[in-house]
Amino acid sequence: LGYLGVFYKRDPSRFLANLPPDEQRELLRSLQRTYRDLLISYFRDPAAANQALESFVNTAFFGDLPITRTVEIHMNLIDEFWKQLRLEGHKNDFLQDYRLALLDVMAHLCEMYRRSIPPEV
Amino acid sequence: LGYLGVFYKRDPSRFLANLPPDEQRELLRSLQRTYRDLLISYFRDPAAANQALESFVNTAFFGDLPITRTVEIHMNLIDEFWKQLRLEGHKNDFLQDYRLALLDVMAHLCEMYRRSIPPEV
Repeated sequence: LGYLGVFYKRDPSRFLANLPPDEQRELLRSLQRTYRDLLISYFRDPAAANQALESFVNTAFFGDLPITRTVEIHMNLIDEFWKQLRLEGHKNDFLQDYRLALLDVMAHLCEMYRRSIPPEV
Repeated sequence: LGYLGVFYKRDPSRFLANLPPDEQRELLRSLQRTYRDLLISYFRDPAAANQALESFVNTAFFGDLPITRTVEIHMNLIDEFWKQLRLEGHKNDFLQDYRLALLDVMAHLCEMYRRSIPPEV
């Protein structure tokens, strides 16, 4: 039960929905950068990927990011990669494999939320 | 805030971890059946898929199912489908598309957990 305490200490003033617009944009940009690092390292540098994943999940959790925002960040980046690869004349069907990265993020985030519900409620 | 109250009423005596072994097996079998319904209907009957998804997510939430269990249920079923298709001489590379179903489940489950954390803690 000890670790649960850590997760409870969320500060609502740091929630995305409660930030002023410029800080909202900055938080989302930061999440996008971290998610990009995750995708880029996902299949070739597991240690770097893991670090990016932990960082993303923590920031999303403490910012109370709606889950649809995570899906959006993923889709926008994949879309961007897709256009880039097409411009360069590369194949892009392997981009579907990056759904594994999104699954990984969701699984970690979901478990973090699950463990953060006080058992007595 | 009104809808939050619904999510709080989890009964720990119904959590998977707190059930006697035979009820644990029954709950897991029931989740597997529902998840199989979800996969079978996912690309051809959106209404049925949606019903199975809601049922699965609710049961997982109220049973406090560890997220890894959901991933396991998915992987075991995909593995079973894969073997069946191979036996019958069909192509099976499309099975990767079912990761979308798992993503869908995780996104819904994660959002349900997110909304269930009391805002004041």
